[in-house]
Amino acid sequence: MRFSVGCEIGYELLSPSTLIFNIEAMTGGRQTIQSEKLTIDPQLSADDSVAIDSGNRYLRLTAPAGPVQLRYEAIVALEAVHAEPEAIEEVPVAQLPLETLPFLNPSRYCPSDQLARFASRQFGDIAPGFSRVTEICNWINAEVDYLSGSSDTTTTAADTFSTRAGVCRDFAHLGITFCRALGIPARFVSCYAWQLEPQDFHAVFEAWLGDRWYLFDATRMAALDGMVRIGCGRDAADTAFATIYGQVNSGPIRVWSEALDGDTSEPWTTDAVSITRT
Amino acid sequence: MRFSVGCEIGYELLSPSTLIFNIEAMTGGRQTIQSEKLTIDPQLSADDSVAIDSGNRYLRLTAPAGPVQLRYEAIVALEAVHAEPEAIEEVPVAQLPLETLPFLNPSRYCPSDQLARFASRQFGDIAPGFSRVTEICNWINAEVDYLSGSSDTTTTAADTFSTRAGVCRDFAHLGITFCRALGIPARFVSCYAWQLEPQDFHAVFEAWLGDRWYLFDATRMAALDGMVRIGCGRDAADTAFATIYGQVNSGPIRVWSEALDGDTSEPWTTDAVSITRT
Amino acid sequence: MRFSVGCEIGYELLSPSTLIFNIEAMTGGRQTIQSEKLTIDPQLSADDSVAIDSGNRYLRLTAPAGPVQLRYEAIVALEAVHAEPEAIEEVPVAQLPLETLPFLNPSRYCPSDQLARFASRQFGDIAPGFSRVTEICNWINAEVDYLSGSSDTTTTAADTFSTRAGVCRDFAHLGITFCRALGIPARFVSCYAWQLEPQDFHAVFEAWLGDRWYLFDATRMAALDGMVRIGCGRDAADTAFATIYGQVNSGPIRVWSEALDGDTSEPWTTDAVSITRT
Amino acid sequence: MRFSVGCEIGYELLSPSTLIFNIEAMTGGRQTIQSEKLTIDPQLSADDSVAIDSGNRYLRLTAPAGPVQLRYEAIVALEAVHAEPEAIEEVPVAQLPLETLPFLNPSRYCPSDQLARFASRQFGDIAPGFSRVTEICNWINAEVDYLSGSSDTTTTAADTFSTRAGVCRDFAHLGITFCRALGIPARFVSCYAWQLEPQDFHAVFEAWLGDRWYLFDATRMAALDGMVRIGCGRDAADTAFATIYGQVNSGPIRVWSEALDGDTSEPWTTDAVSITRT
Repeated sequence: MRFSVGCEIGYELLSPSTLIFNIEAMTGGRQTIQSEKLTIDPQLSADDSVAIDSGNRYLRLTAPAGPVQLRYEAIVALEAVHAEPEAIEEVPVAQLPLETLPFLNPSRYCPSDQLARFASRQFGDIAPGFSRVTEICNWINAEVDYLSGSSDTTTTAADTFSTRAGVCRDFAHLGITFCRALGIPARFVSCYAWQLEPQDFHAVFEAWLGDRWYLFDATRMAALDGMVRIGCGRDAADTAFATIYGQVNSGPIRVWSEALDGDTSEPWTTDAVSITRT
Repeated sequence: MRFSVGCEIGYELLSPSTLIFNIEAMTGGRQTIQSEKLTIDPQLSADDSVAIDSGNRYLRLTAPAGPVQLRYEAIVALEAVHAEPEAIEEVPVAQLPLETLPFLNPSRYCPSDQLARFASRQFGDIAPGFSRVTEICNWINAEVDYLSGSSDTTTTAADTFSTRAGVCRDFAHLGITFCRALGIPARFVSCYAWQLEPQDFHAVFEAWLGDRWYLFDATRMAALDGMVRIGCGRDAADTAFATIYGQVNSGPIRVWSEALDGDTSEPWTTDAVSITRT
Repeated sequence: MRFSVGCEIGYELLSPSTLIFNIEAMTGGRQTIQSEKLTIDPQLSADDSVAIDSGNRYLRLTAPAGPVQLRYEAIVALEAVHAEPEAIEEVPVAQLPLETLPFLNPSRYCPSDQLARFASRQFGDIAPGFSRVTEICNWINAEVDYLSGSSDTTTTAADTFSTRAGVCRDFAHLGITFCRALGIPARFVSCYAWQLEPQDFHAVFEAWLGDRWYLFDATRMAALDGMVRIGCGRDAADTAFATIYGQVNSGPIRVWSEALDGDTSEPWTTDAVSITRT
Repeated sequence: MRFSVGCEIGYELLSPSTLIFNIEAMTGGRQTIQSEKLTIDPQLSADDSVAIDSGNRYLRLTAPAGPVQLRYEAIVALEAVHAEPEAIEEVPVAQLPLETLPFLNPSRYCPSDQLARFASRQFGDIAPGFSRVTEICNWINAEVDYLSGSSDTTTTAADTFSTRAGVCRDFAHLGITFCRALGIPARFVSCYAWQLEPQDFHAVFEAWLGDRWYLFDATRMAALDGMVRIGCGRDAADTAFATIYGQVNSGPIRVWSEALDGDTSEPWTTDAVSITRT
């Protein structure tokens, strides 16, 4: 399927500032950018580069005080791998690829050490495999209220676990935290999400199962085969859509994602879906 | 200078377990391993590999229940870069190498977002450069008590900032946190530390200044030119000397580090010291 | 001096609810209510009582779904004790009145155990007495930014200490926390505050020194001799102006405090000021 | 039933210190002290007084540097009220006695605000009454591991909720927290506990139901009709058996509680048990 995705972001810089954006669709795996266009107003030279380890694309620009407006738009094709959930196994730690090991470690928003005992009590006796991660998502979806404004940029998965309320990034953090506590590598993914209402940047997570990274969305607010990946990392600390060094006022953000040729009437897939092996 | 370093670690495994060790000296940069020897008793096949991104060496072994004893010993040569502190500048975020950017993000034990206001108030007006990071170390050394047993594996830099007590890993976490809050990439380094008393695994940090990673030790408990680097990462979560999947009882740990041909009577260096650019 | 104080509060109850208000001026000590009037619309019977231990006045009413509007207005006379700060001594724990001891214990928002080492390092060498608490207020005023919206109802003094930003209740919590850590009983006071701009419920603290509770306001935003006390307790958890059992939407709050016969052109007092011994 | 209870506590004071002990059995309600004896070695004058609000007995002594040894022993009779659990109702907030209201507020170790959503989700649909608090205890007993050393003096009920491990004081804090979140006044009780193995100071909680404070022990480690109450308060911050102002080394503690004339072979009561109305 192909998607038209993009965003418009505006700032009023109160001082000369450096801004690092991570809003461009990733390339690689089963995600292909067919066309894209970035507009910066005023025209400023920007340093656009791809991080070797994560594949995240960073747009870095230094701007004088005054208004800055960004618009990014792209046509992206997804040919996601679909697989039978029942056929996908967990990988024992002893056999995990070395590059997945950092995604077992606790991180800023995913203190898997703190929730280890609960994860083991609640999910330890479930048969390992893709379906165990599905159970984790079921649990989060049932036990945590999706509630705008209930969390902020300091909220960790342990906080969400206690308060039982959060938004998409909190749902993803909690899923990642439980996976890591069980020995399943898991990472945070920011994306453009088809059918998400209202449209915004979305956050989901990927777990390493079988021989790939599979997508999971504990919010169940968008179809798994319509996620155009933007950034991935340990947690939200690695995938901020904008990191700003300087003083600014933020304007409104507009985000969109539309299927170009999909039959939008289909029910959402219940397959296991993966975009990437790395 | 050359150092004889090593450790002995023992466990009683109560169940079949997978253990991942990060105890071997790193290679690369100005650190060269002249000889090394690893003994595992009982003899078990171990998977020894080097992480591409960090250069950390991971020894992964799966063992049946029963005792396991590890001994690692190595002769390591250090030809550290020494530089004039005054000559080393901070790098504006706009010009930082892309691969250093993740080390600006908050992590499990280094919530630089939480301490940003204090860092700016306390260190924001100091002239940028190597000496500003030295000031950070001076502050930590003066304001935090080194106190065994005052922290545990859940202690963050924000906790240490409040309680004003910690051990070497806490001192390193606090230094990293302040650096990141100021826009200076910083990372955690575990090491064998010459002249550390009593001998143990040590923790210091590196900050990206000029065009290299420079070593800092806010504890001031060992000489900067005698640090044999073992692991580096976002924080202690990335450099545990042992990560254990299974049930075990831990035995005593013995760690050593001796200068083979150094004149140990010299005063500790006050130069800027760097082992690696990457 | 006499003050005309009061407030108007409105709610839309979505379900039958019980509401407990603590908005009426306290009586006793040097604070006298000359007249007061409470209006509840619709007319509902309310249970108005005074807590024996704190002297707080609680207005409890049970209301059906629908709008509720409260208006409280009072004329209150203050004849505060004024004393020379230099003449007021701290009381050793060994001689503290028994009823002040609970105000040495850590509480929800004042975890004096966590900040004890800092308090001792920063204020431990200052000569005991009223002026030491003044120094605490000086430190808070200099080191913490008063910033609306920087804290919420979960923010503790340890959080404020780390983030270095807060509002009046956070300033009071931090002052209380440092006092308790030093062995000085301290408690939270909500009040109507003359000259506070903009007008709102204010929060200050009292420390037990000499033989009385003396007022301190680390925000320095209002005159100490114009504080009409509403509630006192361990911390803000004990003095919420409204505690609601039920589902409600809150409307705007209006608070006022005006001097009736004072010469408002005088500079604010620098005396030690106390309203009550108990 | 009558119990012989007591304790021996020793300290080495490194400086002149003030010590406040709360180790003496409370009087009042259905708990009567038939005889008691306090020995302090060396003989020091101590200030022994009863707090008006809580009824806690505080023994305050100031001692020079050197060893101090305390021994307290008492014969205490309990004539607990036993009642049918099914017959005991919760009291709506609108009808709660004023003096129970502070026990609805969050406190240092019982942040009932943070766990309110979970409490409502988990226990909100259970029919109000004594049996709802029993369900809370059932939940804690099933979902939290009793594990010595798993918590420390900074551990809150929110921490225990996340880590799912604790000791008696953590179990009590969690029970109190859930009760308060549901609008049931609850308070912390330290006690001598008959049949507790191994013997130590014990911690349980009381909830206000019907017209009395009823005892609950989520650990289920001792019989409810063998609890000799020592201290009660908001949480453990109010009932420390020893609070020390000065530098000391603590020696071993010995605690005992023996039934003098009870038939110790009876099964533990499943009645609702209350010692006091105030």
